[in-house]
Amino acid sequence: MEFKEYFPIWDKLTSAQQEKVSNSITRRVIKKGVVIHNGSMDCAGLLLIRSGQLRAYILSDEGREITIYRLFDMDICLFSASCMMNSLQFDITIEAEKDTDLWVIPPEVYKEIMQSSAPVANYTNEIMAARLSEVMWLIEQIMWKSMDKRVAAFLLEEASIEGTDRLKITHETIANHLGSHREVITRMLRYFQSEGMVKLARGIVELTDGAKLRALRDA
Amino acid sequence: MEFKEYFPIWDKLTSAQQEKVSNSITRRVIKKGVVIHNGSMDCAGLLLIRSGQLRAYILSDEGREITIYRLFDMDICLFSASCMMNSLQFDITIEAEKDTDLWVIPPEVYKEIMQSSAPVANYTNEIMAARLSEVMWLIEQIMWKSMDKRVAAFLLEEASIEGTDRLKITHETIANHLGSHREVITRMLRYFQSEGMVKLARGIVELTDGAKLRALRDA
Repeated sequence: MEFKEYFPIWDKLTSAQQEKVSNSITRRVIKKGVVIHNGSMDCAGLLLIRSGQLRAYILSDEGREITIYRLFDMDICLFSASCMMNSLQFDITIEAEKDTDLWVIPPEVYKEIMQSSAPVANYTNEIMAARLSEVMWLIEQIMWKSMDKRVAAFLLEEASIEGTDRLKITHETIANHLGSHREVITRMLRYFQSEGMVKLARGIVELTDGAKLRALRDA
Repeated sequence: MEFKEYFPIWDKLTSAQQEKVSNSITRRVIKKGVVIHNGSMDCAGLLLIRSGQLRAYILSDEGREITIYRLFDMDICLFSASCMMNSLQFDITIEAEKDTDLWVIPPEVYKEIMQSSAPVANYTNEIMAARLSEVMWLIEQIMWKSMDKRVAAFLLEEASIEGTDRLKITHETIANHLGSHREVITRMLRYFQSEGMVKLARGIVELTDGAKLRALRDA
């Protein structure tokens, strides 16, 4: 599979634009744990994921984290090219959660094409609208949902992403996804264990009663 | 002043597009307190504010509120036309905070123009990026800022919008802006009063020490 099969509006580009993109993209492999974009001054470019997993999060002054969204195969990361748009002004950090194989489109190339092409600009609009919808969902979670429901939702989502009920994940990592503290997560997971919903071991959270976790999440 | 003087990319429309917009817009006056858009099923259209003030907020199942952003003269409200974009999927309520005079552009007219016009699509992109940046700022506030700083910031912003230090506002309304409870806000304002930062009366919060409030906000 080539770039054009991953880029949904390839056919809507003119041949000159296609050539411009083809000649400027680079392919990169990012190792798990590597930060590829950090803060609003960075402008690595648009990232189109061939395979792997990226996590976008924000950091507090004290080093606390909360996950804003995650990107998977065929997803496009726009905010690593925030210099493309004047009004995109916020600090976000993007890190590879798994070894990730991706293409980088230079921001100035994409910007130039977007400014003259309605299909590219509308495609960009749809991506931004999708991210905005995810961020609005996150605000609702933070504001109205108690932490037990959020931990249950996170574990179920993680099990679905990984395709297994036996998650290799630390309490610290869960806290960093949810913007919480390790101690809070440890207490919550012990409560879940006492209720038979999970089984804990060093670096492992095993989901033992998915139905009960789903009932808690959706309550 | 006419519509075209409020719409920043009027000159980038073709004359056919200009005519289409001119023939389809309507002018409306919304009374203070009236809800003009409610939830993702509504699609009133794009709102271009001539004068007045709108507030966009989300609601919890229990009726709690939090303000997402506010719109002032010459601002454009995009999310009241969310049916324009497939990926804009969230429930938001838009209410007039003051008597508001605005134009409504029908969503199907704007969508049709946006899909063929790169300038209109890019303009829409910038609006969306600006809103997204505001929402990201809000997440940072909710996650990392304590309620005393958020109340101080809100009072200072409100004084700046209203052009007075004597605010006609209830504790309930402040709670609804910040996603908090009335009791929490009342306790906080009494603490502010004991510190000499505000003076409270029925339905009135008067800022008496702006410097101290700013110092708290920025601490």
